[in-house]
Amino acid sequence: MHKNFKNIDKIVYGKGAFNQIDDILAPKRDENDKFMVFIVDKYFEGKKLADRIPAHDGDMVFFEDIDQYEPTTDQVDRLRDQILAEKGLPSGIIGIGGGSIMDIAKALSLMVTNEGSSQLYQGLNLVKKAGIYHMGVPTVAGTGAECSMTAVLTGPVKKLGLKCDWTVFNQAVLDPELLATVDTNQWFYTGMDCYIHCIEAESGLYFNAYSKAYGDQALALCREVYLGDNAGQNLENDEKLMIASLFGGLSLTYSEVGACHAISYGLSKILGTRHGFANCLAFYHLEEFYGDAVGEFKEMIKKHNVDLPQGLSKEWSEETIDAMVEVSYNLPHMWNHAIGLDWEEKWTREDIKKIFKRL
Amino acid sequence: MHKNFKNIDKIVYGKGAFNQIDDILAPKRDENDKFMVFIVDKYFEGKKLADRIPAHDGDMVFFEDIDQYEPTTDQVDRLRDQILAEKGLPSGIIGIGGGSIMDIAKALSLMVTNEGSSQLYQGLNLVKKAGIYHMGVPTVAGTGAECSMTAVLTGPVKKLGLKCDWTVFNQAVLDPELLATVDTNQWFYTGMDCYIHCIEAESGLYFNAYSKAYGDQALALCREVYLGDNAGQNLENDEKLMIASLFGGLSLTYSEVGACHAISYGLSKILGTRHGFANCLAFYHLEEFYGDAVGEFKEMIKKHNVDLPQGLSKEWSEETIDAMVEVSYNLPHMWNHAIGLDWEEKWTREDIKKIFKRL
Repeated sequence: MHKNFKNIDKIVYGKGAFNQIDDILAPKRDENDKFMVFIVDKYFEGKKLADRIPAHDGDMVFFEDIDQYEPTTDQVDRLRDQILAEKGLPSGIIGIGGGSIMDIAKALSLMVTNEGSSQLYQGLNLVKKAGIYHMGVPTVAGTGAECSMTAVLTGPVKKLGLKCDWTVFNQAVLDPELLATVDTNQWFYTGMDCYIHCIEAESGLYFNAYSKAYGDQALALCREVYLGDNAGQNLENDEKLMIASLFGGLSLTYSEVGACHAISYGLSKILGTRHGFANCLAFYHLEEFYGDAVGEFKEMIKKHNVDLPQGLSKEWSEETIDAMVEVSYNLPHMWNHAIGLDWEEKWTREDIKKIFKRL
Repeated sequence: MHKNFKNIDKIVYGKGAFNQIDDILAPKRDENDKFMVFIVDKYFEGKKLADRIPAHDGDMVFFEDIDQYEPTTDQVDRLRDQILAEKGLPSGIIGIGGGSIMDIAKALSLMVTNEGSSQLYQGLNLVKKAGIYHMGVPTVAGTGAECSMTAVLTGPVKKLGLKCDWTVFNQAVLDPELLATVDTNQWFYTGMDCYIHCIEAESGLYFNAYSKAYGDQALALCREVYLGDNAGQNLENDEKLMIASLFGGLSLTYSEVGACHAISYGLSKILGTRHGFANCLAFYHLEEFYGDAVGEFKEMIKKHNVDLPQGLSKEWSEETIDAMVEVSYNLPHMWNHAIGLDWEEKWTREDIKKIFKRL
């Protein structure tokens, strides 16, 4: 049985595509209680982009702080309760920001029609009713959240996505100009999410020609952006990175993330470490899984003078490390992919602990 | 303004994906008058694949002959009238075959809900009502018809697609095993449709990073399939060619075909020449447009001992050639792309005629 995967319904790509959002939303504005909800990264509050958000009278705009922690089930539940109580059922949800904002927008679009806490729906196909129209407008490139069928949330028990066909965006607006203001560290960490997706996808069990075609092209684009003659933050590279992110996400459609994401999820769940940064912290120390790619990754870090702290584990208690190991160990789909279906015979909590201690 | 393009809703890719069709159709079978219509290339009548078609009691299966000519508006109108008269409105249309069958299935899905002849709807956004659920199952790879928003038909006046968001398939089933029985010439001509799409897309005005990423990867795959160490018809290459076709089609989303398709459309409209073959006839003689790619194309022809007749124009009357020139000249979007917005100042019917006389 091959996956039958749901695509983003519609995509608009190109410099200035942001200006088309109002026109794209127009025919949807008659739906439900006739207002739109914009979920925007707090980073943009008071900045130029905030003035360009095409909110009409009666729309709601939330500037959400996602700098301190990964998006949580509580955060989504709170937004949902406030929106339904104050104005009813929106016509659509528009997420403008990075992967966390994409996750919040996707989860909200489902949670306005499904009852109870979003914790109830963490997993595959647990969502009971179709959500409402939702649009993703990424302002950072690399996560692939613009095309994935999962809205990753951290709950009291687990870090796991609301995963179903209805999660996928109805519309993606991919405007490379929006990447211009990203700071260099963020640009690097998030871009590496894409690079790491492709390396993980290609180094494992679940992999086919479809996944490889997308992954190879995304890797080629990442190499141009981070190591090419014209490497660095400029419009030409932002155009490429926006595509690399999409392709990296589509590569995962038929593959899986592996060891790096398993370690990274442990960091995020227990310490709240942001996803792209956590991936980089882990990937640096995973040569036994990813070989030469780790060398290439270190070359990129050097070229762009990126901050990547070492020796973090010295500050962690044994209990903290054990808690991270437990989160990591309980991601069998990732270890299946990285090591094989018999991974439990080859790989122990002790092995995972050794990796955390290297960080 | 960038194109806001509609994706295929769902894609299943992989060896044996054909066996999943029945399960995928199951939840759709309650729609409309509760029967499915399978449009199948006549080539498969009496062959093994015909026995595997998951038709239920009450479904209709049409084996359509598409060897003699490109699909016509008459053919689609006739099928539509017969289906509606005999059984009413289908739950869905499933096309199993090459680009022509894809075009017929897409057009039929629109024409069962839109009145009058399909001639009325040849063009962009002329279709008035949404069509019904439709699925594309390509058995030849290269056309990109599995993902395009156009159902190309030849009518009494023009060869032009029914082009709108509703044309796009709700489901594509991409099973590389279905390519195993394609004869070598057909395998080559259709694969070259993809190669030529990408070369044309990259050699012209309407082109961006999105189109380039898909086009580069599709070209890389074509080169492996037709010129690589393992070149030729085998499962590994069929897996790649199936993806190349999809990527070539997606590359065109943000670009256009050019001179080769303009010449090819003249051949198909006036002589009924099949599309992939017509493209090859034209591309061989278009070095001034496509430079080294024509040399590479000739290398592929040689490697696979493909039949590509020369000297055809000796048999054509002046009237025939003039008629083809007229069809070709009246495709301004292709010449815009190939030559520039001022193409009419640089390019005449006489120039086009010279190309036809080389064939």
